Amino acid sequence: MVETEDITRPPREWVEALQDIGAATASSTLAHMGVRNPFIVGPLARTAGRAIAGPALTLQFMPKREDVYSEDEYAEPELQLHRHALYHTQPGDIVVVDARGDMTSGIFGDMMLTYFKGKGGIGVVIDGCIRDYPNAKRLDLGLWVRGLTPNFHTQTDLMPFAVNQPIACGGAFVMPGDIIVADDDGAVVVPVALAEEVIAQASEHHGWEGFSRQRLLEGGELRRYYPLSDEARPEYEAWLKEQSEEE
Amino acid sequence: MVETEDITRPPREWVEALQDIGAATASSTLAHMGVRNPFIVGPLARTAGRAIAGPALTLQFMPKREDVYSEDEYAEPELQLHRHALYHTQPGDIVVVDARGDMTSGIFGDMMLTYFKGKGGIGVVIDGCIRDYPNAKRLDLGLWVRGLTPNFHTQTDLMPFAVNQPIACGGAFVMPGDIIVADDDGAVVVPVALAEEVIAQASEHHGWEGFSRQRLLEGGELRRYYPLSDEARPEYEAWLKEQSEEE
Amino acid sequence: MVETEDITRPPREWVEALQDIGAATASSTLAHMGVRNPFIVGPLARTAGRAIAGPALTLQFMPKREDVYSEDEYAEPELQLHRHALYHTQPGDIVVVDARGDMTSGIFGDMMLTYFKGKGGIGVVIDGCIRDYPNAKRLDLGLWVRGLTPNFHTQTDLMPFAVNQPIACGGAFVMPGDIIVADDDGAVVVPVALAEEVIAQASEHHGWEGFSRQRLLEGGELRRYYPLSDEARPEYEAWLKEQSEEE
Amino acid sequence: MVETEDITRPPREWVEALQDIGAATASSTLAHMGVRNPFIVGPLARTAGRAIAGPALTLQFMPKREDVYSEDEYAEPELQLHRHALYHTQPGDIVVVDARGDMTSGIFGDMMLTYFKGKGGIGVVIDGCIRDYPNAKRLDLGLWVRGLTPNFHTQTDLMPFAVNQPIACGGAFVMPGDIIVADDDGAVVVPVALAEEVIAQASEHHGWEGFSRQRLLEGGELRRYYPLSDEARPEYEAWLKEQSEEE
Amino acid sequence: MVETEDITRPPREWVEALQDIGAATASSTLAHMGVRNPFIVGPLARTAGRAIAGPALTLQFMPKREDVYSEDEYAEPELQLHRHALYHTQPGDIVVVDARGDMTSGIFGDMMLTYFKGKGGIGVVIDGCIRDYPNAKRLDLGLWVRGLTPNFHTQTDLMPFAVNQPIACGGAFVMPGDIIVADDDGAVVVPVALAEEVIAQASEHHGWEGFSRQRLLEGGELRRYYPLSDEARPEYEAWLKEQSEEE
Amino acid sequence: MVETEDITRPPREWVEALQDIGAATASSTLAHMGVRNPFIVGPLARTAGRAIAGPALTLQFMPKREDVYSEDEYAEPELQLHRHALYHTQPGDIVVVDARGDMTSGIFGDMMLTYFKGKGGIGVVIDGCIRDYPNAKRLDLGLWVRGLTPNFHTQTDLMPFAVNQPIACGGAFVMPGDIIVADDDGAVVVPVALAEEVIAQASEHHGWEGFSRQRLLEGGELRRYYPLSDEARPEYEAWLKEQSEEE
Repeated sequence: MVETEDITRPPREWVEALQDIGAATASSTLAHMGVRNPFIVGPLARTAGRAIAGPALTLQFMPKREDVYSEDEYAEPELQLHRHALYHTQPGDIVVVDARGDMTSGIFGDMMLTYFKGKGGIGVVIDGCIRDYPNAKRLDLGLWVRGLTPNFHTQTDLMPFAVNQPIACGGAFVMPGDIIVADDDGAVVVPVALAEEVIAQASEHHGWEGFSRQRLLEGGELRRYYPLSDEARPEYEAWLKEQSEEE
Repeated sequence: MVETEDITRPPREWVEALQDIGAATASSTLAHMGVRNPFIVGPLARTAGRAIAGPALTLQFMPKREDVYSEDEYAEPELQLHRHALYHTQPGDIVVVDARGDMTSGIFGDMMLTYFKGKGGIGVVIDGCIRDYPNAKRLDLGLWVRGLTPNFHTQTDLMPFAVNQPIACGGAFVMPGDIIVADDDGAVVVPVALAEEVIAQASEHHGWEGFSRQRLLEGGELRRYYPLSDEARPEYEAWLKEQSEEE
Repeated sequence: MVETEDITRPPREWVEALQDIGAATASSTLAHMGVRNPFIVGPLARTAGRAIAGPALTLQFMPKREDVYSEDEYAEPELQLHRHALYHTQPGDIVVVDARGDMTSGIFGDMMLTYFKGKGGIGVVIDGCIRDYPNAKRLDLGLWVRGLTPNFHTQTDLMPFAVNQPIACGGAFVMPGDIIVADDDGAVVVPVALAEEVIAQASEHHGWEGFSRQRLLEGGELRRYYPLSDEARPEYEAWLKEQSEEE
Repeated sequence: MVETEDITRPPREWVEALQDIGAATASSTLAHMGVRNPFIVGPLARTAGRAIAGPALTLQFMPKREDVYSEDEYAEPELQLHRHALYHTQPGDIVVVDARGDMTSGIFGDMMLTYFKGKGGIGVVIDGCIRDYPNAKRLDLGLWVRGLTPNFHTQTDLMPFAVNQPIACGGAFVMPGDIIVADDDGAVVVPVALAEEVIAQASEHHGWEGFSRQRLLEGGELRRYYPLSDEARPEYEAWLKEQSEEE
Repeated sequence: MVETEDITRPPREWVEALQDIGAATASSTLAHMGVRNPFIVGPLARTAGRAIAGPALTLQFMPKREDVYSEDEYAEPELQLHRHALYHTQPGDIVVVDARGDMTSGIFGDMMLTYFKGKGGIGVVIDGCIRDYPNAKRLDLGLWVRGLTPNFHTQTDLMPFAVNQPIACGGAFVMPGDIIVADDDGAVVVPVALAEEVIAQASEHHGWEGFSRQRLLEGGELRRYYPLSDEARPEYEAWLKEQSEEE
Repeated sequence: MVETEDITRPPREWVEALQDIGAATASSTLAHMGVRNPFIVGPLARTAGRAIAGPALTLQFMPKREDVYSEDEYAEPELQLHRHALYHTQPGDIVVVDARGDMTSGIFGDMMLTYFKGKGGIGVVIDGCIRDYPNAKRLDLGLWVRGLTPNFHTQTDLMPFAVNQPIACGGAFVMPGDIIVADDDGAVVVPVALAEEVIAQASEHHGWEGFSRQRLLEGGELRRYYPLSDEARPEYEAWLKEQSEEE
């Protein structure tokens, strides 16, 4: 019988904080902490405007070798590792798949994604494809994928190989339980051991950003407003005061 | 004078059945029948939500060689083979083009596509680009293309070479008259000689799929509902009965 | 102190004429004038339906070498060349960036683009990425980019190197001050010295195009209506008369 | 029974003249005659120092579709089109194969190439691979290929489709009977209809090239010797005289 | 302390038999047994003419993440997994490395390869690069690599991650202890569980191949000699008799 | 008249020291000094065994635009910038060319390379091709190129644009006058300002390397000999003594 490990999930507040921070700030903060490129290159946001964060369930595919894997979509479903990855789903989870960039393998279809949604899963990040999109798009899951295909997962060159093991996805290294932060900019891996520090550093809010954005949009000078110059600080403070009076 | 062959069109009911089946099931059914990968890789659905099926008119491009093809967009239009491909259009036809993956050749522009639409054409599948999209998008044709370009068809590296001959498109082999099934998942080639068998096999409906989808969305167990387990069968039958009473 | 050159802007009426002409006709006209491929391959229209034209401010990136460029996003902003490119912005300008096709460098983020918008900039063309898209998309700028990324501009492999110098972008050569014409078909470079000739040639209107488009959409014959045949000319003239009477 | 057409072979003296001219001069001469790029990009000279010319037998592969081609290497060899291509071999012939750039298909193996050699074939140009190289390399054929593989021709994604039909090979268009000129620089297609003109133009010898090469190697000035300047002409004539006296 | 597993080595006679069979026949035999493509695509024979077989020690690299791996070439060598892969070397072993196709990471340098050679290692297969080639080439090891680089293994984007675990290499799945067969055609993975069957099937010698090769080289007909036709059998038998008398 | 700048050449002893150090050690030393990847990826050593170092003359190509560059190989040679790059040649110089990875442009042919050789040039590094190799190979220059082609430099998509300006080559940034170190491992850029430090750091010889190499080749343990362990030090010292007595 197939047995796969579950993951350890991070505190809920870390996940929420990282969702607020967003992919761009998470990535640049990690870069300043020494993690050069935490960005998962390749999977694109198919669900525009969606912004999520959550712990990573991982699923690894390998090149198919017919003596190891003999395909038959419905035969012995309990042996199918891509199902096992989803069996671990808890509310708020994100599945991250090493699909080797393959454009002819539909890692999950409509029914698998429906199950994942039913268990509270919030998104998938795949350096490959899903299938059955005409049905799957109704599920309102966050989807970061390289593309779509009508093919099923083992139809051409891949076979599922491991669940909740460290994987590579889009040139990034992902440990099961790492926190994924994904929005229109793409998906970023926040190593769980660095999460608190990322949150701390990213939260040193530049209170003046909202002010500066407004001034820039009105044609203000970049040199004056971004970053906020000493000359503009009194103007900012006056604005701040005005803002609080308005509320 | 240029003479090109027409295609033999399959029975209308085959086309309709395949449209209902959709690209994903058509592809997996063909795979189980021994056609490993009938998916045309590369052209993406530009018209989200569109799902069509129809016989393939084919058009083949070759690398341009100036001693064979000397370009002049408007000179002697009757020699232009990309026009001849469209001359064969009948209602419900789909044009499939081997454009060699070229991203700087706009195979058809606004006027060609307008003519195609006027003759009842329903979609194009091109492993390359179209041009004039700001106008062409109003035509409400199904479009599966690799991209868009402002360039005309023979502006850079291609020349049209053959009409309604066997072609390669996106790594798939397409015979004129084969049935194309295309939706958001992409375009699939159903060899016309296999069409009836695909329809027969794909139509062994899993009557329980609607039931299972509902249960999974409510948080039901994959092992119980997909595929439907013996334990869940009484529940399914009760649901079926309930459904019919509701109607 | 960093000093960069400004550009010479073309007459406003040239820009407006080219915007009316659009990318497809600009490209084919240039091709007939001997400029084989003025199309910037790679950057795609992210803002569907937008059609703009304007003079090019140029920004060139080079492979990062740490002895030349030591990154620190906020340190000494006045040394950052990507800011200097934007300092030259005047209403109607377009920034064109040689980002070397890099998918892990976000050339501009939300604040830079806000400033650009505030100064009257109308669009960016980058053979690379922008970041902060969840915020930047609200700016209503025309965007032709290869993609999005959460990473900042110098986070991985690039460093900004020159402003308003000749660059390569998407396989096209762009001089500062050349006129960019961009719409859904993509972005085209109109060499400023050829602009008047392009406008002249592209403006030899085929007055019959609207007539022909209507007839083709009704199922008319391509041979008769496109290009307009001598046989169809009386029909066209009758239509013209009818049109003018209707108005 | 499979029947394939033979080719029309050009006069022997054209072939010999083109072999003397070589690929570099053939390509630049064709470019000056308006054929922009007659170079077959991809296949590399595996047999260093070999320089050949000869008429093209052509063989076209298509993406394999299992309903059209069911592989079995030894079953019914007479149906195998890659054999038929070789059946036409006459002394001095070159086989050119459209193998679609595939790196996992060995178009010909040891036995096929042995037969080709036995019939007088002098070289193969394949935008793909051969197999059995440990044996095949003993045959002393000219080989321009993208690589080597242990796989047989139809083992993965290809099937042979046509013999002595026009093909694309490495981005060039090749007609059966065109003359291939191949050496260390790669393989060039000389359209047979242009062959005489290429020979004529390429034969306007720059008699001074040998002289200039010698002077340049001794440290002479490029401006003086290449192309030969008027100032250097007397020196060249003296050298010529000296040369003839030496003989 | 780092502990990695050793592999189970196959019987010596299997390895020797497979070396005699060679990569081409091993691959086609496996294909006929249902393993579609056992060829490791990418690594090329750098040591022309070398033909080896042996059990696979495996080494897996992952995308570098600086919080997991902080590089320092000489610090704590005992932590370096690429050393541990080599610690298991026994005479006749081959190291197979999943280097992710990276062209800027030199997996092994001169000293590592010298140690490997000293322990009896016979070859390496890497879908990536080695470094220090000016020294390493003197070692007379069999090398199948994608290229060479001056960079060390963790200088850019990779970190070693696992030893003697299943890996992907060049699109093939390799288990530790599988038998690698490599020659000029490239490297093939023979799954150890299929080795005996491959040997059995590949050894059904076509005794007539030597005869046929000779006849073909003399200009004999392919139809008559390959495969050997019934008509040619008496000729073959006469030849056989002659051969045995000559000895 | 075309005027281009010359370069400042580094002291001869730096160049010689770097040639002794070689590409592999130069690259790893620069990496430890903070220059992550000084390796020029793409150009391969075509002249096996050659190891050179020298200052970089640089030549930059841009995408051809016909209004800026109208090709004619022999017309007005003094306008050809690729000639001007070579006019600056002094003994020991290396030409580095940004050829944009183009595989259909032969940057230099036989005559240009002959002139370069005559002036004392020692090698070229091009992320593109040369042509006329059948003649050029006799010149005994060091060649690091991506490939060969029969086409001339401006035949297809490129035009020369700048001489002795900073360029990108194979993903590396090269300043005119930087020192190139090239051997079988490839070509490395040593920024001239860092050259002395590279030489200093790379020259802290590990005197025991020759000893360790010998022991490893005899089957010695990696843990004992590389790096040299304290346990092995007496053995090394004995070996050293023995060595000196032998001499």
